[in-house]
Amino acid sequence: MKHDVKDLSLARLGRKRIEWAERNMPVLARVGERFRKERPLAGLRMSACLHVTAETANLCRALRAAGADLVLVASNPLSTQDDAAAALVKDYGIPVFAIKGEDNRTYYRHILAALAHRPQITMDDGADLVWGLHKDRPDLAKHIIASMEETTTGVIRLRSMAKSGTLRIPVIAVNDAQTKYLFDNRYGTGQSTMDGIIRATDILLAGSKVVIAGYGWCGRGCAMRAHGLGASVIITEVNPLRALEAAMDGFWVLPMSQAARLGDLFITVTGDVKVLRPEHFRLMKDGAIICNSGHFNVEIDIPGLEKMSRRVKHGVRNFVDEYELRNGRRICLLAEGRLVNLAAAEGHPASVMDMSFATQALVTEWAVKQRGRLEVRVHEVPQEIEDWVAKLKLATMGLKIDRLTAEQSRYLSSYEMGT
Amino acid sequence: MKHDVKDLSLARLGRKRIEWAERNMPVLARVGERFRKERPLAGLRMSACLHVTAETANLCRALRAAGADLVLVASNPLSTQDDAAAALVKDYGIPVFAIKGEDNRTYYRHILAALAHRPQITMDDGADLVWGLHKDRPDLAKHIIASMEETTTGVIRLRSMAKSGTLRIPVIAVNDAQTKYLFDNRYGTGQSTMDGIIRATDILLAGSKVVIAGYGWCGRGCAMRAHGLGASVIITEVNPLRALEAAMDGFWVLPMSQAARLGDLFITVTGDVKVLRPEHFRLMKDGAIICNSGHFNVEIDIPGLEKMSRRVKHGVRNFVDEYELRNGRRICLLAEGRLVNLAAAEGHPASVMDMSFATQALVTEWAVKQRGRLEVRVHEVPQEIEDWVAKLKLATMGLKIDRLTAEQSRYLSSYEMGT
Amino acid sequence: MKHDVKDLSLARLGRKRIEWAERNMPVLARVGERFRKERPLAGLRMSACLHVTAETANLCRALRAAGADLVLVASNPLSTQDDAAAALVKDYGIPVFAIKGEDNRTYYRHILAALAHRPQITMDDGADLVWGLHKDRPDLAKHIIASMEETTTGVIRLRSMAKSGTLRIPVIAVNDAQTKYLFDNRYGTGQSTMDGIIRATDILLAGSKVVIAGYGWCGRGCAMRAHGLGASVIITEVNPLRALEAAMDGFWVLPMSQAARLGDLFITVTGDVKVLRPEHFRLMKDGAIICNSGHFNVEIDIPGLEKMSRRVKHGVRNFVDEYELRNGRRICLLAEGRLVNLAAAEGHPASVMDMSFATQALVTEWAVKQRGRLEVRVHEVPQEIEDWVAKLKLATMGLKIDRLTAEQSRYLSSYEMGT
Amino acid sequence: MKHDVKDLSLARLGRKRIEWAERNMPVLARVGERFRKERPLAGLRMSACLHVTAETANLCRALRAAGADLVLVASNPLSTQDDAAAALVKDYGIPVFAIKGEDNRTYYRHILAALAHRPQITMDDGADLVWGLHKDRPDLAKHIIASMEETTTGVIRLRSMAKSGTLRIPVIAVNDAQTKYLFDNRYGTGQSTMDGIIRATDILLAGSKVVIAGYGWCGRGCAMRAHGLGASVIITEVNPLRALEAAMDGFWVLPMSQAARLGDLFITVTGDVKVLRPEHFRLMKDGAIICNSGHFNVEIDIPGLEKMSRRVKHGVRNFVDEYELRNGRRICLLAEGRLVNLAAAEGHPASVMDMSFATQALVTEWAVKQRGRLEVRVHEVPQEIEDWVAKLKLATMGLKIDRLTAEQSRYLSSYEMGT
Repeated sequence: MKHDVKDLSLARLGRKRIEWAERNMPVLARVGERFRKERPLAGLRMSACLHVTAETANLCRALRAAGADLVLVASNPLSTQDDAAAALVKDYGIPVFAIKGEDNRTYYRHILAALAHRPQITMDDGADLVWGLHKDRPDLAKHIIASMEETTTGVIRLRSMAKSGTLRIPVIAVNDAQTKYLFDNRYGTGQSTMDGIIRATDILLAGSKVVIAGYGWCGRGCAMRAHGLGASVIITEVNPLRALEAAMDGFWVLPMSQAARLGDLFITVTGDVKVLRPEHFRLMKDGAIICNSGHFNVEIDIPGLEKMSRRVKHGVRNFVDEYELRNGRRICLLAEGRLVNLAAAEGHPASVMDMSFATQALVTEWAVKQRGRLEVRVHEVPQEIEDWVAKLKLATMGLKIDRLTAEQSRYLSSYEMGT
Repeated sequence: MKHDVKDLSLARLGRKRIEWAERNMPVLARVGERFRKERPLAGLRMSACLHVTAETANLCRALRAAGADLVLVASNPLSTQDDAAAALVKDYGIPVFAIKGEDNRTYYRHILAALAHRPQITMDDGADLVWGLHKDRPDLAKHIIASMEETTTGVIRLRSMAKSGTLRIPVIAVNDAQTKYLFDNRYGTGQSTMDGIIRATDILLAGSKVVIAGYGWCGRGCAMRAHGLGASVIITEVNPLRALEAAMDGFWVLPMSQAARLGDLFITVTGDVKVLRPEHFRLMKDGAIICNSGHFNVEIDIPGLEKMSRRVKHGVRNFVDEYELRNGRRICLLAEGRLVNLAAAEGHPASVMDMSFATQALVTEWAVKQRGRLEVRVHEVPQEIEDWVAKLKLATMGLKIDRLTAEQSRYLSSYEMGT
Repeated sequence: MKHDVKDLSLARLGRKRIEWAERNMPVLARVGERFRKERPLAGLRMSACLHVTAETANLCRALRAAGADLVLVASNPLSTQDDAAAALVKDYGIPVFAIKGEDNRTYYRHILAALAHRPQITMDDGADLVWGLHKDRPDLAKHIIASMEETTTGVIRLRSMAKSGTLRIPVIAVNDAQTKYLFDNRYGTGQSTMDGIIRATDILLAGSKVVIAGYGWCGRGCAMRAHGLGASVIITEVNPLRALEAAMDGFWVLPMSQAARLGDLFITVTGDVKVLRPEHFRLMKDGAIICNSGHFNVEIDIPGLEKMSRRVKHGVRNFVDEYELRNGRRICLLAEGRLVNLAAAEGHPASVMDMSFATQALVTEWAVKQRGRLEVRVHEVPQEIEDWVAKLKLATMGLKIDRLTAEQSRYLSSYEMGT
Repeated sequence: MKHDVKDLSLARLGRKRIEWAERNMPVLARVGERFRKERPLAGLRMSACLHVTAETANLCRALRAAGADLVLVASNPLSTQDDAAAALVKDYGIPVFAIKGEDNRTYYRHILAALAHRPQITMDDGADLVWGLHKDRPDLAKHIIASMEETTTGVIRLRSMAKSGTLRIPVIAVNDAQTKYLFDNRYGTGQSTMDGIIRATDILLAGSKVVIAGYGWCGRGCAMRAHGLGASVIITEVNPLRALEAAMDGFWVLPMSQAARLGDLFITVTGDVKVLRPEHFRLMKDGAIICNSGHFNVEIDIPGLEKMSRRVKHGVRNFVDEYELRNGRRICLLAEGRLVNLAAAEGHPASVMDMSFATQALVTEWAVKQRGRLEVRVHEVPQEIEDWVAKLKLATMGLKIDRLTAEQSRYLSSYEMGT
């Protein structure tokens, strides 16, 4: 079996972590059990480009149980958990191409390995695989049943492709499922981003000023948690409606040119490019910490930062690089501007990935059932999958809720009864 | 000028409150100024069925400035501010039919007065006017340019009418504008509901257990504020996804049959019927307080409560009726089960109604411009109106935000650039 | 029976509110029941100078049940609830001298009426009665068994008297009981201050910037609640330790000279004089709202504000006076700078006053038992009274807690067992 | 130089972390600079028994700069950071006796090494060193100038010793300084405990039920942060007043016998023994996680847990041991019941230890100045040290506060001015 991972001897640790994650993924486990019996993906070649974590490993196990002939590659050069990668290869027999800290060349070599598998189904986190397919292996497009996309950034990218007429395969925006973005993007990113920052820096959040660029679902997750840890939160936005929400949620709303002077810590989660750039760096306090929790490492203009620095000390702590500007002030960049929650911590907790990945697995099954009937465009997740996931998650959390009485159902669809 | 209000001598007080509200409605004021010049509603007969408050008075002034020949009636028997009603009649020359505490017969007589005006445009809060029109004056339907609907309950009702083929006029779901429901339903209902409860009961929220039925936008507003005042919040829901959100937002989620035993205070905000009913009343603690902040007074089964009570003391405090059950325990019902924020306090603060009513006014103007081109169905608010309102609100709050750079805009619509 | 109240016909409403408050004062009720049997204050003349509210009425009933010959006067010109005062006179036969909105001359005439009663016990809220006694009726001092003081401001004043050798009677600092200041000053002042502000102004707290001067127990109560209602909170302090706490609690900490430019609403709770003064007024935004929730109306320099204003509009809304500065900007002063929670709302909720007033009643009994043995100084509340009140409060809230096992108790007093 | 550390080759990493911590300890740095010049501890032998962390290393550097002849030993078998220990020995020349995971025999051998140094000053975290001195080397007592105690548990133990007449040296309760317990115990323990739990388990806090035993300063820190991360928090207490505060802070208050059934995660922070014991374990849900953040590993009855388990799997993840009970349910114990924040994470962030350790250093200097004048008892930290630390901390955070005007100071010490 071909693979490219850091060190197979890490498998033991990885397996432990995969099994631990499994405990908190009961919905996915239920899907996996059914898949094992029904084998809905039997004989299908599938390539997944995802963050290679213990949670992803459990998704892969479910897909394998369903019969998929699966290859997994990294969706980010710095997010791979080498122990999980090793265990997938050694203990679960799944070919993985992913090494934490791989350079961009290796990263794209791995993407090519995923394409060399000639997948009939793809799964993507950021759309690098799909874009690679369109660019380098357009011949594969006609064989693709569908591709599932996991993240906001990828969905934006795919919609742009669809809009411009470039897209050649059906895509399902798993990210846009409520069972995904309401939970994963908010509670998952919120906690794991703060976790990554604390592990990297060990700073006290209480009493600090945290500037969060972007008040989308990930941004509000980060804001909620930074606040919950005692920080004063400042939001920057380009969207007036979101800015209003941030203000009414009790946060300060400022343009970055003002926030830059105030922050002790900056987090970008916008999905856009150069959100922090030289004009902001030069205003920052000595010792300011900057990091990114958006998908790509383009949100912080690192080349711009390098250019204005007179000295760079790499690794003043793990995942911390110190840039000394010509004005004498120091800026600490975390995790090379890559997803700090995945690079410096373990990514989203398993119990939140449970929902996202159960949805992924079910959507894959659904797409295969639709084989040949899916148009080339960005599709939404079917409502019934969302309902099923939400209900089961609730049950596995031991939570019971009310049911509409017959009279209540009737009332909701009536209109005669008023004041 | 015909009218039916409580007492014109209240006009002085009402005017003061209207002018005070005006200070916090700068976006509506800006709309009003333009309307005064452009007179987009000149000569059009218009009937509005709204909560008659100081904020509504300012909306009416803007509509009048636009040239509308306007009649205003109450959208709820207990939500009228008699002083605002008096001032509208006396100081602003607008016919009002609304008396706080009017019985249902008077309420519907007022609706008929609104219809007798033979409106070409209607504005509704709960769809009683539109439903009355369909039921009692179907002849008017063909003259209606459009009707604006302000509240979730009304939109649900109108969609049911549309679905069943009953609807005969074009309707615009102003409630579903983000500039409306994200703010009014959440921050408005949240604060004003707690305000109404505190005024009615003067209870300490800190240390109490508050059960909120419904985790829609209004429900989460109430939860946020009850929590913010120090209460332990319990959510009941019928929707699994919302229940999950409530749990992950840190609240307890229980079925009402369990919550009923625990709560000190119960608030219904579901838009459905008999959410609290005898099976729950009989479980409640002695002294439990129950109230409703949903649109109609059907959420609490008051006839059911009466039937199981051996004694009712009305007015043990203003807006508080005490029901003594046969098990000896007492339940305190607030504001006869009507919207507690409007009955026992002043409804939503002006600054949040500013957005809702600016949107109302602008949508009215837009509908008139579309005259004859609007299909008979439930329409959404045009995005450009939302954007304009959000931007202006932000500016009037003194908040500045970032603008996308050219490079950032370009990036958002590109797809080539990945890892 | 002598008395001086606004209008005895308000008694019916007052009685209702007193009985309603009684429901939420179960600890005081328990004390009252025992007092009725044991009559520990039988035959003693007592004068109380307190906020005349429904909760105070219930304290008075308990003291009367104990046999005290009681006179009650207002401790603040604007905090009297005229209906409660009327009911105390008419329904409960207690002489009251208190009229909401009385001028300072009347206020001091009422204090003199309390002294004319030749009390053997006094109870004070702000130390005006005790200071009046020292100044105007020093002859009474030798008959005084003790005086109970209810508020921080009064305790500070009495300690100054003690320090300077002026104090001539034993005083008990009821305010300093944990069962008082941890609850009343924090949860009571917090909720009721926001309540007073909302009733006076109907502003939306969400999205506003609230400046709170002072981060003592009352200040952090206000901060907690303003935050809980969605405001951004800014704290000003003179004490570095409290300022640090405020910062680490997630609030902004600024000197008033900077905060003055930013705030939409200002609340003073410092116990000191001229905390807001012309140098700050001149920096404030148009429409800024200022109010006080500290004991005396000296925290805002109102004469200074008047002097710099070119126009004053009284009563633009109830309890709102608008000062138009010469720079054209308007400042709205609430409740003439008096305790906004008592002037514009109903003061602290009954359930929190339950603890404070049960402590008051029990301390009074205790002091009488110590008759002749209490030194002339400021005494603390005996720990056993605190414990009894805390335990009973907990029980009446239906809360159960753990008890130390024998082994645990032993461990706590041992030292041998380490790592 | 004698020492006993894990591996000197870790020194490089340790030094990096020590220097990183130094950035966030500006107050201690200022103290250290002065000490370097004034050498207030010159020639004094000193033994410190502390958590061996990067922050402690900076304290040691300051004490060394002051001239102390210092030996450092671990105050807990599982809290040592081996890299910091190595750097202290290799780079800073300070003898350290501490190895992460050492057994109790080694632990006490290290304590003896500290005593063998024949200290004239001791510094303690939990009172193991002082108690060891009394038990094993009572001959040293007469040479001891003073001992500084860092933690609540130690202070309780020392007070017991003082009460029983066992104590033979002067002790200063550094823990009881406001600059210590208000910050370190609350914000420090709060964040670091959650950090330790997340690193050990990677669980999602949002939506979980967290039971916290104890609502002292550490307990409320944990409660604040668990809540801030989206958990529902349940408090157990033995003290009614604290239980009331917890309830009014919005938390659920239950006896452990009820909480045990509900919790997903349990944290003990009581300073007492067997807070979680078999009667509770048997009620817990399958998969419940239990941990301790109190000083000693006695709060969870681990022997009791072992006895009722049919199987124990050690290290199912790092710092996680799984106990399978005979009822089939599994309980996960973190960090062997030792301080989870120090065992599984890095302990308190540097910026909060800055205050505690600046106070430690200054108190040491002060004690030396009092040499021979300190009675044998538990002393408080002098107020002027607290003021100095608070002011400087504020300044280093860039925060400015108000100063009393002359008129305000005067008013605070006057009593004549009332209503």
